[in-house]
Amino acid sequence: MKNWIDNVKWTDDGLVPVIVQDHISNKVIMFAWMNRLSLEASLKQKKAIYWSRSRNKIWTKGESSGYYQYIKDMIIDCDKDVVLIKVKQEGGISCHTGRESCFYYRVDMENNKIEECEKVLKNPDEIYKDEK
Amino acid sequence: MKNWIDNVKWTDDGLVPVIVQDHISNKVIMFAWMNRLSLEASLKQKKAIYWSRSRNKIWTKGESSGYYQYIKDMIIDCDKDVVLIKVKQEGGISCHTGRESCFYYRVDMENNKIEECEKVLKNPDEIYKDEK
Repeated sequence: MKNWIDNVKWTDDGLVPVIVQDHISNKVIMFAWMNRLSLEASLKQKKAIYWSRSRNKIWTKGESSGYYQYIKDMIIDCDKDVVLIKVKQEGGISCHTGRESCFYYRVDMENNKIEECEKVLKNPDEIYKDEK
Repeated sequence: MKNWIDNVKWTDDGLVPVIVQDHISNKVIMFAWMNRLSLEASLKQKKAIYWSRSRNKIWTKGESSGYYQYIKDMIIDCDKDVVLIKVKQEGGISCHTGRESCFYYRVDMENNKIEECEKVLKNPDEIYKDEK
């Protein structure tokens, strides 16, 4: 039987966008990219392994901080070109800025400005080294 | 004061990925793209207006089905290159297949296969015409 991964529609760069939610709260905590190799490795290890577009290499989330993302659920969209994963975020921090979520600039739609809506939980210098 | 939209980091094609959540359940129901014009129009109208990469034009979600997405909240990520919106989905259907969510292929990680996890709520022929 054909492997479902053969039907994933990759970008011209061979990537697929990945939305990352906390598996209990459903809070969106991160957005990243995977290539086929990192998607297969993620499935095998049940840990989030991405493709870093800035560093041009495979990147296991948590490899330098210990803050791994354990995959509890994975869902693919109708067009098979987006991956959604629900994870248990080790340490409760997914953002390289030391916040729970990378999504922390809330748009004040009335006044057309942005304001921070997530606290820094840990000094990023202490928890992340070459990760992003 | 500088407009925060001036700091959004667009792709080479002038787009930004948009994650769409239901504003109450936090369920991820869609993933799409906006350009600057559609982001500004979305903010002004408080309705989701996207850039259709397949049709190469601005696209108001719901324009042919009436199933608009009313934006209740908008959050930008740390790198200012991803937009998250929380919406009230008119009609409760966001997917062109007639499902609540576009994310309906659940990956069975043990057996390396996918299975549908969302019901078709309405015949898509009845509700969508040229939308996707």
